Amino acid sequence: MPQDIKAMMQEIGAQAQSASQILALASCEQKNHALLKAAQAIRNHKEKILAANKKDIDRAKERGLSPALIDRLLLDDARTENIAASIEAIAKLDDPVGHIMDRWQRPNQLNISRIRVPLGVIGIIYESRPNVTADAGILCLKSGNAAVLRCGSESKYSSRALHKALVEGLIAAGLPKESIQLIPTQDREAVGELLKLQDYVDIIIPRGGKGLIKRVQEESRIPVIAHLDGICHIYLESSAAIDKAVDIIHNAKMRRTGICGAAETLLVERAALSSHLPAILDRLISSGCEIRGDSDVQKLNPKILPAFEEDWKTEYLEAVFSIKTVENTAQAIAHIARYGSHHTDCIITENPLHAEKFLNEVDSAIVMHNASTQFADGGEFGMGAEIGISTGKMHARGPVGLEQLTSYKYQVRGNGQIRPL
Amino acid sequence: MPQDIKAMMQEIGAQAQSASQILALASCEQKNHALLKAAQAIRNHKEKILAANKKDIDRAKERGLSPALIDRLLLDDARTENIAASIEAIAKLDDPVGHIMDRWQRPNQLNISRIRVPLGVIGIIYESRPNVTADAGILCLKSGNAAVLRCGSESKYSSRALHKALVEGLIAAGLPKESIQLIPTQDREAVGELLKLQDYVDIIIPRGGKGLIKRVQEESRIPVIAHLDGICHIYLESSAAIDKAVDIIHNAKMRRTGICGAAETLLVERAALSSHLPAILDRLISSGCEIRGDSDVQKLNPKILPAFEEDWKTEYLEAVFSIKTVENTAQAIAHIARYGSHHTDCIITENPLHAEKFLNEVDSAIVMHNASTQFADGGEFGMGAEIGISTGKMHARGPVGLEQLTSYKYQVRGNGQIRPL
Repeated sequence: MPQDIKAMMQEIGAQAQSASQILALASCEQKNHALLKAAQAIRNHKEKILAANKKDIDRAKERGLSPALIDRLLLDDARTENIAASIEAIAKLDDPVGHIMDRWQRPNQLNISRIRVPLGVIGIIYESRPNVTADAGILCLKSGNAAVLRCGSESKYSSRALHKALVEGLIAAGLPKESIQLIPTQDREAVGELLKLQDYVDIIIPRGGKGLIKRVQEESRIPVIAHLDGICHIYLESSAAIDKAVDIIHNAKMRRTGICGAAETLLVERAALSSHLPAILDRLISSGCEIRGDSDVQKLNPKILPAFEEDWKTEYLEAVFSIKTVENTAQAIAHIARYGSHHTDCIITENPLHAEKFLNEVDSAIVMHNASTQFADGGEFGMGAEIGISTGKMHARGPVGLEQLTSYKYQVRGNGQIRPL
Repeated sequence: MPQDIKAMMQEIGAQAQSASQILALASCEQKNHALLKAAQAIRNHKEKILAANKKDIDRAKERGLSPALIDRLLLDDARTENIAASIEAIAKLDDPVGHIMDRWQRPNQLNISRIRVPLGVIGIIYESRPNVTADAGILCLKSGNAAVLRCGSESKYSSRALHKALVEGLIAAGLPKESIQLIPTQDREAVGELLKLQDYVDIIIPRGGKGLIKRVQEESRIPVIAHLDGICHIYLESSAAIDKAVDIIHNAKMRRTGICGAAETLLVERAALSSHLPAILDRLISSGCEIRGDSDVQKLNPKILPAFEEDWKTEYLEAVFSIKTVENTAQAIAHIARYGSHHTDCIITENPLHAEKFLNEVDSAIVMHNASTQFADGGEFGMGAEIGISTGKMHARGPVGLEQLTSYKYQVRGNGQIRPL
């Protein structure tokens, strides 16, 4: 059986590569045609998709999955319409392929242009949410890449139904149906084989828990774009406007506690402990947030639990917030360098010099001044859509949108130039 | 002993990371100061450097290395001056760090900029040529990265002497001497340990033979920017101007046969066999080039050897050229897609439509029209200097210069924005 899986994955890889060569040269119109037809197919087959999703939900309930996980799996009329609408939104985005990034002439009259080209074949491994099947497949398609998708077993029926609709769009536009493939088996070996397809797959994007990402980074011979922890910090200075600070911090922590851009640690300049922190604590505690603080912070409110070393290293992803006192901007930056995860960090201050110091010195994908860390999102950045947020520095950093799914090539136009010795 | 090497490499990694945090914030002036002082130190210590080089050369002769390898190792007055001068040239290049790549405002008034930042710590593993110690160290420094260098054992004395001069420059400029480290041991285990330093090293660049690159790609948990084969093609059409074609092809093949941008295979449109190829063959054969052709090509000259399937897959890196007949542009593109290495490929034609088809459809880092493939070089592209040519698509493709040694981050400036639900 493993031999069959190996052969199947080789076949999937080879077909994806062939498809990618056609996609790389497909016009924007043709790709958009496939997108719009896929959106239409999702609407046309809504009943089938919801029926498939019911099978996933029933299995999830049998297996005793948590209500939160079941909610992530669930599709209904509105969510299905959302998937179709977001495909149409991607159709409206500019095509990155063929964009001239740069152009110059050399003294010997050689004309050099650097233009965007697709990466080739993108393997995406993801868990639970079925809409990723559509989002990821469509982002790859629009950026001229072939996609090899591997969904979590919990969403297999929903993902298959959505994938069928995408293939309908591809066929309607005259593009290879292998442009977006969904690995059919649920065998765990298939993931291992996908990670070994370095002859066919150009890049792997894992979307899921730390276990998945660790496995991919350890096993893969293929370059990986991955999102690791989102231990996001807010540094609050005494010069901050109190109302702004209360609103930003509450939003950064509590708007959605389970997303990677949610704040996990608040660093407070000592001078702001008495002036700013009480109002912030009131707002957070009355919203049901658990606070863990150092001894200076604990003095402000009896409800505050003690924070331990482990708290500074923890991405809670729930309504828990750690708070630490620091003496100044430099100490805040040093804390973030030591405990942060290079994702998103923010300073709240009315001191422009401190703000610029923080923006320049903190080594994170996204550094912010006076705004909620929950803006860490490709859509909020105006990139239209994203496939995730990269915490690595190679290739793509921060939100991974259409542009980040491309490479480039140099076109050199001459009229007989030869290189002197 | 291996335990000592492991501990030593961990120490080197940690020191490089600390240095990289300082380098990332160093001003252009400070970095340039280190560069100019290093160039001066190389001139000041020229005698010591040449004496060290003599030890390497003597060892190489004892070990019976080929004259070509010994020549690659050799330093003399002119080559040493060249190293110093090229450091000064890098000082004159624009600093990529801090460059604003893009800037926009969102409807909610958030101001977003994307700015270049260094990658962090770059590990470079290279063979034989001692000047790489200076080139690689200096390119990393100018782009704000710390460098961990591992030279080949053949150049160890020369590399150490050059490294000393670089450290003199660092110290003179007040930068950490660990900004450029040369792994002191010659143990083979040190390479293995370097490849495992994923907590400290952000990127590995191997420069050397296929064995080295294969080892690095297989063992490393760190992202790799690598140069694999340079199987460069020229496609010659019957509409080409004969004189241009003869000059370009001769230069592309024979200017230097051992560099990655040297042409290895000529594809000839059938209609050009009798009109163009004879003059080209005359020029190549009289320059001492061995020709291997298909049966149609062989008919043109009795000196032509038969080409076999293996020839289309071979990067000769010497005065050998394979020639194949194709029917049209599409067939040439298909041959390159099958046998090429995505490095540099060129079309010689006076037909602008065919030229554009070739430039768009050939999936190589560099695609050329009517110019020698030997222009595949960061210096010739105006990038000032390069650390190699990447044949991968992730992060950097083609010449890897200062810009390609950077990542970016997003700076977001707000005035109290919170994200709506």
